[in-house]
This record gives sequence, C-alpha cells and structure tokens, in this order.
Amino acid sequence: MATEKKTPPPSAVGIVQSQDFHFGDSPEDVLQLDCGRTLRSVTIRYETYGKLNAEKTNAILVEHALTGDAHLAGYHTENDRKPGWWDAVVGPGRPFDTDKYFIICSNILGGCSGSTGPSSIDPDTGEPYRMNFPVITIADMVRAQKRLIDHLGIKKLMAVVGGSMGGMLANQWPILYPETVGSVISIATAIQITAQSIAFNWVGREAIMADPGWKNGNYTEQPQKGLAIARMLAHITYLSDESMSNKFGRALQSSTDYSFNFNSDFRVESYLNYQGNSFVERFDANSYLYITRAIDYFDVSLDHDGDYKKAFQHVKCPYLIVSFSSDWLFPEYHSRGLAKMLVENGNDVTFCNIQSGYGHDAFLLEYETLGKLMTGFLSNISQEVIG
Amino acid sequence: MATEKKTPPPSAVGIVQSQDFHFGDSPEDVLQLDCGRTLRSVTIRYETYGKLNAEKTNAILVEHALTGDAHLAGYHTENDRKPGWWDAVVGPGRPFDTDKYFIICSNILGGCSGSTGPSSIDPDTGEPYRMNFPVITIADMVRAQKRLIDHLGIKKLMAVVGGSMGGMLANQWPILYPETVGSVISIATAIQITAQSIAFNWVGREAIMADPGWKNGNYTEQPQKGLAIARMLAHITYLSDESMSNKFGRALQSSTDYSFNFNSDFRVESYLNYQGNSFVERFDANSYLYITRAIDYFDVSLDHDGDYKKAFQHVKCPYLIVSFSSDWLFPEYHSRGLAKMLVENGNDVTFCNIQSGYGHDAFLLEYETLGKLMTGFLSNISQEVIG
Repeated sequence: MATEKKTPPPSAVGIVQSQDFHFGDSPEDVLQLDCGRTLRSVTIRYETYGKLNAEKTNAILVEHALTGDAHLAGYHTENDRKPGWWDAVVGPGRPFDTDKYFIICSNILGGCSGSTGPSSIDPDTGEPYRMNFPVITIADMVRAQKRLIDHLGIKKLMAVVGGSMGGMLANQWPILYPETVGSVISIATAIQITAQSIAFNWVGREAIMADPGWKNGNYTEQPQKGLAIARMLAHITYLSDESMSNKFGRALQSSTDYSFNFNSDFRVESYLNYQGNSFVERFDANSYLYITRAIDYFDVSLDHDGDYKKAFQHVKCPYLIVSFSSDWLFPEYHSRGLAKMLVENGNDVTFCNIQSGYGHDAFLLEYETLGKLMTGFLSNISQEVIG
Repeated sequence: MATEKKTPPPSAVGIVQSQDFHFGDSPEDVLQLDCGRTLRSVTIRYETYGKLNAEKTNAILVEHALTGDAHLAGYHTENDRKPGWWDAVVGPGRPFDTDKYFIICSNILGGCSGSTGPSSIDPDTGEPYRMNFPVITIADMVRAQKRLIDHLGIKKLMAVVGGSMGGMLANQWPILYPETVGSVISIATAIQITAQSIAFNWVGREAIMADPGWKNGNYTEQPQKGLAIARMLAHITYLSDESMSNKFGRALQSSTDYSFNFNSDFRVESYLNYQGNSFVERFDANSYLYITRAIDYFDVSLDHDGDYKKAFQHVKCPYLIVSFSSDWLFPEYHSRGLAKMLVENGNDVTFCNIQSGYGHDAFLLEYETLGKLMTGFLSNISQEVIG
C-alpha cells in the first residue's frame, strides 16, 4: 500500500476569483427547508474553472467535504502559499480538464466560507443568526445549489462529484433532481452514516458546546479549546492506524526520554494540537455544529418511507463509486452496498475499492489512482453528452 | 459472530470484603518510581477469593482495566445490585475456580478505588496530591503490586491475568519479576500502544483539562463535562462499528422524526450521555489523566534499549494470548506479534483470535469462549505447579 506522501503537481489554473450568487429576496423565492422553516436572502459563494460550452452541457459540479470551501483549485492572489483544496485534479489534461469541462465548486449552505450560514447576518434581526440558524440537511444544501445551477443556465450537469460529506451531496442530487444529473462520482462516502459516526459527531459537538467560550453560540471569539478538541477527534478518524503508525509511530516530540508530565510528549500529540489550533483560525464553531448535524441526519431514503429502492427509482444515470481499503470512517461496505443497490436499480456502475493505507484522507491523497478512474469515467460520459 | 448479549450466570462467591495493604512508611521502604521520584505511605486495596494453599502455589493475580477496581467478583453488601466487574468467571467450577485457586485482584497505583492515587492525601502536605502526584508507569503499578504479593507470602504466582490495560500489567510482571510469574494470560492488549491510541488518550485528557471545573486538578467537584466527554470518546473505541450498528443503528431516542436541534436525538447519543455522566460519579478525573498517561508510556522494551528480545530474555513462562476479531483499539496484530516473538523466545504460547462482533469490550462479554480457553490453560498450569 502506498503510504509515502507524494508532492502534488504544480497548480495549473492560475489566479481564480470567487463569485457570489444571491437569491431569496422575494417571498416566492425563499428556500424551503426540511425542518419546515425557510431562509431568505441566501448567498452561495462559488468558483468556476474552464468555459461553459454554448450548449451548456459540459458542467461538472464538485462538492467539498465538511470543512472545505468553494476554492477548489488555483490561487486567489499571487502571494497565496497554498492552492485550492483539490488543485491536483483540476487543469488542462487533468481529470477535471479545464480545456474540456466547466467546473463549478460552491461553498455549502451552512458553511462559513462565503455562503449563508450561522455566522451570516439574519436579515430579520440585522445580527448574525448564530444558533437561530435553522437546522439544515444535506438535501437543503443541494436545494440551494440547484438555484445556483439554474442561475448559470445549466439544464443538466454532466457530473456531480464529491468525497466524504461531498459524496453525500453528490448522492442526494439525482434523488432530488434526476433530470439535472448526467452522472455521479461518489467517493469515500455513504448514503447514511452508522451509529459509530453519529457518536463521534456527538462527542465533537459536546466538546464545542461544553466550552464556556461558546456562550450558547453567541461568542465573539471562537470557543478555542472546544473547537480544537472536536477537530482533533475528527482528525483521528480521517487517518488510519497504519498511516498514523507510519507518520508518527511512538516518536517523541523534542526529547529522547519521557517528560513525565501532561504536555505534548509524543509527536502525534503536537501534530493534533497544531491541527486543532489552526482549525480554530479558519472554521466557525457554529457552522461545525450545523454541518455535523446535517451529516447525522443524512439519509437518502428519508422522503421515501425509508425505502432505498424507492429513493433511487427515478435515478438512471451512470455512477463511479470509489472507496479506500483503510478508510474506517466510511468503510468499503458502504460504497459496495450502494454499488450493489444501483446495479439492481439498472444503473451503469463502476465500483473500485482502492488499496491505500491513508484512511479516509485517501480521497484527497490518492489523486493519481483516483484521477485515472475519474478521467476515464468522465471521458466516457462526455463522449455521450458532448460528443 | 456473536452479537446478542448474554445474561451472565448468577454470582457464585457471595459477600466479599476489600482489604488494604499499607507500605512505605520508612525511608528504606518507599516506592521508587520510573520518573525518579518516590512514593511513601502507599495503600493498595485488594480482594481475594478462594483459599491460599499451604505451599502458597495456587495464587492467580487478576489485573483490572483502566477504570476497574479490586472488586473482581461477588457483592460487598446484600443490597448491591451489581457484582464485581468479572464476576462471571469467578467461583467454584468457573475459570478462576475458587475451589482450587486463590484469586487476588488489587486496585492499581494511581487509581481512585482505595489504592493510593492523585485523590489520596499526600503525607508531606496533608492535602490531596492532585497534580502533585508523580507521573507513574505501568511498571510502577506492578512494583507496588509486588509488595502486596510479598506481603501475602507468595513466592510465585501461578498466573497473572489481565485484559486491556490489565494485560499491560500482566505482560510487565514477568519482565520485572521473571521468577515470580508462573504463567501469563494476556487478553486484548498490546506491549505498546500505537499513535492512534496515544491520540485518543490525548484528546480525552485535553477535554478534561479544558474544563474550567478541572481547575488545574484542584477541583472539589469533578470537571463534569470534560470527564464525560473523555469517557464518551473512550467508550466509542471500546465498541465496534458492527456492535454499535446492532445495538443502536440509527434509531431515534423518543420521537419518530428528527427534532432538528442539538439535543440527543439518536439513541446512541443518549446512551453515550448516560455513560459519560455515570462515569463522573464513580471515577476521579485526575486518576483518568494519570492512568491514560501510564498507558501511553507503556513499552516493555523501555529499560532494554528498545529491544523486545532483550526485554523478554529471562521470561520463560507459558502464555495464553487472546485477541478479538472486531477489537480495533487493540487489534489482533498486537497479540499475534507478541505471540510470534514469544515463540521465538522459546516460550510455550497458546494464541487465539476469538471471532466476536463486540469490539474491545469482547474481553468482558465473551466470557464463555474466553472462559473455556482460560480454564484449559490454568488447568494445565496447575497440574504442573500444584499437581
């Protein structure tokens, strides 16, 4: 299994700009949510790469994971040190080939990177929503994205692609809008999470809400400790026992012997601390609560009497389904089960369980193997759609 | 795989009493610790079952896990609702046969159930040690137990038995005192933990220490939230994805539909809350810090230049080594690796990976299968030792 981390190729898309799409200012234009409430004055931040063809048939919508954003690839300024979150697969000749396809990535509803979420201003009060933000679902996020796709004049997406939570959105799309989705690439995800994942999300949220700095969501400074603990815990679930052993083992941070105290002694402890603290600087605690709750609630069978066959009955598009052998957060059996059900549903399905030691993080790290699978799949789809 | 929880057999040992052994009141009798410090006026709480024979050759020392205690079996009073923590395997005709063997179980050094730990009075100050308690190791815990065994006049233990952290003590025993250990039963454990387990322990401790109620260890009321979060997190690692799916699935607690809030909606969330809150009532937060640190530090090769062969070179006793197929906290490969090394070391080794869906908790739940293995192993040992 590949465990040596490769250096990604140089960015190929240059400087990109985010755009904001705004909707829901009139009563008939508000967003109806699963919880029964509505949202008005909604902003969706997005980025695009490549050119939309005249027929508007070459669009690929890429969904980000829990803490991702619209910045899929390239740089915002010449001084940026890091490119977008999945830069390695975007650009001429790459899986999301900007010479052929029009790639869209948008920050999810409930997020904190430009789209409307708990930290946005509630137009009813002029104050941030905070915990008055409605509890949203993955389907609500997709409904908001659908407005963006309509706005862009796209009748049918060539593909919807996503890994982890992004894969949940990708799977939700054709169930809500079967006519709008040409194909799905579902990576390291599930169509509902199990009790174990619900439990990890619960503990993370409890850590945030136990932090007195959270102040029932009304903080002005982030609940530093609680959010860092939630992130550290989640981070463990993104790696594998194997990758953590390879990366850290039992190596000590700075001394050759135990310090016999409770500071970070092992390298893995310092690493987690770093991950926790840097997360606090970039991600809103309330958004973390809302998005993990949406993940808990996600279940494509919900509006179909808990019947998956019913949920997928109008979904006839081809699927590429990928899992990773050491991913224990979204184990192979989830993807295999989805593939089996879709085969029985009559869909064209390609399923691949990639051998990798990286755990759940493999969906971002195994971009070469995954890239080849996506390139082939998208090329087949585009030949049918674009010609 | 067995996933239906069986009702344990009725308790067979009746009312038992704890005893306290005290040592270290004179300068030459203090306990030397790995950290370089010493402890004086040490108490070790213990219980015994069955009778020590005249030759003192029929003693079995049973080691408890992280949050266990000396109360292995039976009841303290007639009103007790629950028997000791491993009651099912203790009594006439059971694996720890009280008609044949003399069973000893003691609360570890650093614990909070009668033995000296952070909540005990520091004789130098007359105040509880709290965070002035020295950072102890698994080897220190074993050194303290050795005093108890000497006190009982036992030259050689017929067996040392332990699961999880208890298995760490069981494995440490013959390395420190090869002449004192007749055999080892090592269950669901490891001779050092991996980065993943160090990471989980780290997050648990951070949750406790982030709770303002912890007050740098100087609390008078437990840091309720932090300790509950640490326990909930640990509890997830004791179960398996499979056992959690079987036990809870995605079942909701009290409603038929989502509540669209952040209270406990799923049954698994309520269950974790219960586990967290009841733990706070029975276990000291500072003890939790110290014991998890001892687990992190545990490595039998430490005083042997990191060389396991060297560590085990004087260890010649038979071993029964058991792991459980769905235990991801102490996966099979730990036990298999230990077994392989001991075979190469010339030891008599029986290794068994029991098929079970219970995860790490299997070491307490699979008492029937495990009991048969232990009964056979102990019977062979006792025939040689007792005749």
